Amino acid sequence: MPGEFELISSITEGLSVGDDVVLPAGDDAAVLRPAGDIVVTTDLLVENVHFKRQWSPARAIGRKAIAVNVSDVESMGARPSAVVVALAFPRDLDRAWLDEFQEGVRAECAAAGVSLVGGDLSSAATVTVCVTALGNLEGRPAVTRGGARPGDVVAVCGRLGWSGGGLAVLQRGFGSPKDLVAEHQCPTVPYGQGVVAASAGATAMLDVSDGLLADLAHICESSGVTIDIDSSLIEIPDGVARVAAATGRPALGFVLAGGEDHALAATFPPSTALPAGWYRVGTVGAGDGHVVTVDAQPWEGTQGWDHFA
Amino acid sequence: MPGEFELISSITEGLSVGDDVVLPAGDDAAVLRPAGDIVVTTDLLVENVHFKRQWSPARAIGRKAIAVNVSDVESMGARPSAVVVALAFPRDLDRAWLDEFQEGVRAECAAAGVSLVGGDLSSAATVTVCVTALGNLEGRPAVTRGGARPGDVVAVCGRLGWSGGGLAVLQRGFGSPKDLVAEHQCPTVPYGQGVVAASAGATAMLDVSDGLLADLAHICESSGVTIDIDSSLIEIPDGVARVAAATGRPALGFVLAGGEDHALAATFPPSTALPAGWYRVGTVGAGDGHVVTVDAQPWEGTQGWDHFA
Repeated sequence: MPGEFELISSITEGLSVGDDVVLPAGDDAAVLRPAGDIVVTTDLLVENVHFKRQWSPARAIGRKAIAVNVSDVESMGARPSAVVVALAFPRDLDRAWLDEFQEGVRAECAAAGVSLVGGDLSSAATVTVCVTALGNLEGRPAVTRGGARPGDVVAVCGRLGWSGGGLAVLQRGFGSPKDLVAEHQCPTVPYGQGVVAASAGATAMLDVSDGLLADLAHICESSGVTIDIDSSLIEIPDGVARVAAATGRPALGFVLAGGEDHALAATFPPSTALPAGWYRVGTVGAGDGHVVTVDAQPWEGTQGWDHFA
Repeated sequence: MPGEFELISSITEGLSVGDDVVLPAGDDAAVLRPAGDIVVTTDLLVENVHFKRQWSPARAIGRKAIAVNVSDVESMGARPSAVVVALAFPRDLDRAWLDEFQEGVRAECAAAGVSLVGGDLSSAATVTVCVTALGNLEGRPAVTRGGARPGDVVAVCGRLGWSGGGLAVLQRGFGSPKDLVAEHQCPTVPYGQGVVAASAGATAMLDVSDGLLADLAHICESSGVTIDIDSSLIEIPDGVARVAAATGRPALGFVLAGGEDHALAATFPPSTALPAGWYRVGTVGAGDGHVVTVDAQPWEGTQGWDHFA
């Protein structure tokens, strides 16, 4: 096992960093030059809770740790800037696992356009990854969950149901449809679309992590509105349809409540021409409370994910 | 066990936040208004690696998670601004433990002058805390490890050896000297002294986390200098002397290589009148490399802490 400082050097060596990085990794803290207000968010990935090493290659776990955090930066309408990565792992973990994890981190940082500017390493009984991501608002106000208005269009950018479908496959001991399994191992975050949506006038936005219905309920609560999903606007991906058939679970459930999608969901004024890649899924209605309905009916299936329920 | 959202609400409810917090916890990300460049740093605390629940009360663990991170912000010469806290814990953990942990987090945030602006919760086999801290440079350049020059004075602010002494006591199954044990459970970070040192002209600075000698070697490496510690300038705290006598280990070793002190060490031009609370411990010499000597001799004891050595 290499020493801690050698490991840190190997992770940060030769990294390219963005123009807003004044001082990269290597000192007590990194120094960033903000553009406008900044956003900050943190997320943990814990082995056997968020991933299993036998279900996900190390590279995908590294990628996912970055992706799920940058997704939250996107959802504020901010341009992703930088991440710090803390990793705890067992002392007897293969060096090859670490190398692949680190490759995944670096690859996803490049895809997301963020600089890896610091981190921490520790031993631990199980692999645990904590990423904190920062973004620049570049003079724009943040797009919160609280700005949706009755009449607004509800739209989504990204993949719904793929990750939940992939998890269902893995839980049954299978490995295909491969595209769904890959999506569970690391979601495809629509990088750049947070700024696009903000610039197009999004009134509220969030990333879909617990399931579309559960997350839209947060917009309802924060904005004092209701939302109705029009199921005729929801496309069922082929792979999801196959998993639904194989498991006897409703396909719509995977799409509306699958979890870990890391798509973006936003509300826009009704006159908005939705940006490319965004598709309408429903409408904002009047009335306070958390109510998200599907075709004007309460949703009877599972709502989403709660770690301690 | 309460649900995840209830827990998050109970942690962030009624928190006071600083003037630079535009949007506090509760959305996908918090929004901060920077003052000058910002610094960012992250640190993990892992149960049975960084702390043991039978050795540290929950409140101290919560306090320490904040303290060790803000210490890194201080060491850049930045004003601590905000933290995000990710916590993983077993599902069967007492609610009382969580409440006390959270009280500790909130108390230390207040002491450090930082706003708690977000976090994440997860289940896990053992308690794991990851904190990321941000600070504002307010128009000043960061004080890195790379600016020390031959002739500079090496000075320290804060307690050296107390934490290492406290750990030695706990490892032998004892609970006193209580002040040393308390220091191990949560270090006393000299909040505000990072900005004070920067304003007084510090040429290099870091926080002493791995042990004074090991950390000063980082300044030597980054600055291309050597450092000699004058042991006659090192005060041995009473408690450390008692632990040294009881364990048969040299008292100076606790002070120079104890680890987890979270004091600040800095170099200043020789003409500097050291700020109140800072005391001289040595001198910067010429020559490249990592060499830190004690009374012009190599140090023969342990150098510091490496998680994977």
